Amino acid sequence: MEFVNHRFTLASRPVGMPKRSDWAYEEETVRDLHEGELLIRVLFISLDPAMRGWMNQSRSYVPPVGIGEVMRALALGQVVASRNPQFPIGKYVSGTFGVQEYFISAGKGLIEADPRVAPLPTFLNVLGMTGMTAYFGLLETGQPQTGDTVVVSAAAGAVGSVVGQLAKIKGCRAVGIAGGPDKCRYIVNDLGLDAAIDYKSEDVTEALRKTCPQGINIYFDNVGGDILEGALANLARGARIVICGAISQYNNTGPVQGPRNYLSLLVQRATMKGMLVFDYADRYAHAAREMAGWMAAGKLKSREDIVEGLETFPDTLLKLFRGDNLGKLILKIAN
Amino acid sequence: MEFVNHRFTLASRPVGMPKRSDWAYEEETVRDLHEGELLIRVLFISLDPAMRGWMNQSRSYVPPVGIGEVMRALALGQVVASRNPQFPIGKYVSGTFGVQEYFISAGKGLIEADPRVAPLPTFLNVLGMTGMTAYFGLLETGQPQTGDTVVVSAAAGAVGSVVGQLAKIKGCRAVGIAGGPDKCRYIVNDLGLDAAIDYKSEDVTEALRKTCPQGINIYFDNVGGDILEGALANLARGARIVICGAISQYNNTGPVQGPRNYLSLLVQRATMKGMLVFDYADRYAHAAREMAGWMAAGKLKSREDIVEGLETFPDTLLKLFRGDNLGKLILKIAN
Repeated sequence: MEFVNHRFTLASRPVGMPKRSDWAYEEETVRDLHEGELLIRVLFISLDPAMRGWMNQSRSYVPPVGIGEVMRALALGQVVASRNPQFPIGKYVSGTFGVQEYFISAGKGLIEADPRVAPLPTFLNVLGMTGMTAYFGLLETGQPQTGDTVVVSAAAGAVGSVVGQLAKIKGCRAVGIAGGPDKCRYIVNDLGLDAAIDYKSEDVTEALRKTCPQGINIYFDNVGGDILEGALANLARGARIVICGAISQYNNTGPVQGPRNYLSLLVQRATMKGMLVFDYADRYAHAAREMAGWMAAGKLKSREDIVEGLETFPDTLLKLFRGDNLGKLILKIAN
Repeated sequence: MEFVNHRFTLASRPVGMPKRSDWAYEEETVRDLHEGELLIRVLFISLDPAMRGWMNQSRSYVPPVGIGEVMRALALGQVVASRNPQFPIGKYVSGTFGVQEYFISAGKGLIEADPRVAPLPTFLNVLGMTGMTAYFGLLETGQPQTGDTVVVSAAAGAVGSVVGQLAKIKGCRAVGIAGGPDKCRYIVNDLGLDAAIDYKSEDVTEALRKTCPQGINIYFDNVGGDILEGALANLARGARIVICGAISQYNNTGPVQGPRNYLSLLVQRATMKGMLVFDYADRYAHAAREMAGWMAAGKLKSREDIVEGLETFPDTLLKLFRGDNLGKLILKIAN
């Protein structure tokens, strides 16, 4: 049986916001499998802010995507051909499959997804890397204590919306920062956060001062820029800042905006710490079980913003940087 | 017996570098002591970068010095009159006495200095707050491990020169950043650091890359600005940055230069943490004993840059910000 793959490869390194011409859309025939390999038909592709960083030349925590290489992406798919007895046809698995329809795996680095536990997109969201990032970022790096005031930016986004809910589960006061009244209503009314700040219509520094009169104990940062400044200006003594991302800076053509208020770290004896979810790989399974339990108990909601069609990828990715998505942005490319 | 006090009070809040006209020089007769009080004749005044921050209106970890108030300063003096049996005439004590000749104390917050243990200025240096800052900043906040590469800025200055020596005592590789060939020679030849970088003649980022090929495990920052950027660009996985000060930024008339490379914290899973020595007050005595032991063993040198004359204070203070001092800058105002 012959499979035809369509894929997006990186045609050029974007300057600022990625343009359509930074991508090439290609077709290829999938080669035959070797012993031990399996062929995965990709169903859902996870769209993440980190992908923008992978498109730059500079080496980060992973090598950049090479020009002409398929764009790196986490994804979920189903085994459609197999010469690996561990992964028979029909199984659902997630992994780094790229922005394409088919992926040949040697059976390494795959995580099985059981559709009886949760709908498949959940395995790219709360039960996938998004959820793991929130779980280990807040619980391990942030070390929340009951009664702490936890502030999270991009609070209606994929990681942020899980962080806010986990803060509530841990007995903290949770304040979310998001863009626009719809997102702000969502994080309070649907997710149960204690307060929301609309960065598009409010002075974040001033709003944080009013909303967090005792100061911020944990700030979980997904955005950087002016919102990070506002959080730094409102830290409580001994505060922890979790640096998870900086989406406001990823499409800068100039230098990154460094946090001018960083000396608050000294004044408040505070800590700013970077985290990467991969460091916790040996504990994913445990965390996913705990998260699934909270979902089953109705304490944790997994919301996806699903866009259909592989060919929409270049434009759909930009929803992240425009702040258009509510919940986890996922590209659905097959049924 | 009547005592006449001379003192410097804050006349106006400086913009940028403090000017002579920001100070008032005043004379007053010292009032009689109440029961429980003692009168201290100030001998040595500690000049510290932090003093610049105390002159600003904004509240920091301590309230600002008020206009018309005597300038806050740590100092060391001798009891010359006493109605407090715990502190008889003749005793040497250190505390926050201000930039003046006499200070009336109620007997609280004083630390006794024993001239048989070390020369008196040492109690404002290695055995005083300077030494305590280096000790707790490096050992508690930095958590050095044997074999770590420790980089310290302002390495020929008061705190920095102790940090570099403590790093060596703890079995680390110590690299100091200082301004000019004399200071660089001093920290390698006299203090025993492994390498020196002259920020006035070298590209610090590039020099750190060459000097720390495995990356920096601990960066102890006294300066902020471009040198902090260079350190961030050269972190090892899991690095710790101790934010102790930012002297390059204290006389800015514009905004503080925020560290544009702060996303290295994420890439390297690194931590940036602020520290204030006051948090460790209950352990000063233990630390001072350990430091005195290292001094006696010849492992730790205490070097002071002593300038004479209270009236030179406005100008002498500026030596700190011009980087003119080598070792701890102290004003000697009496024998």
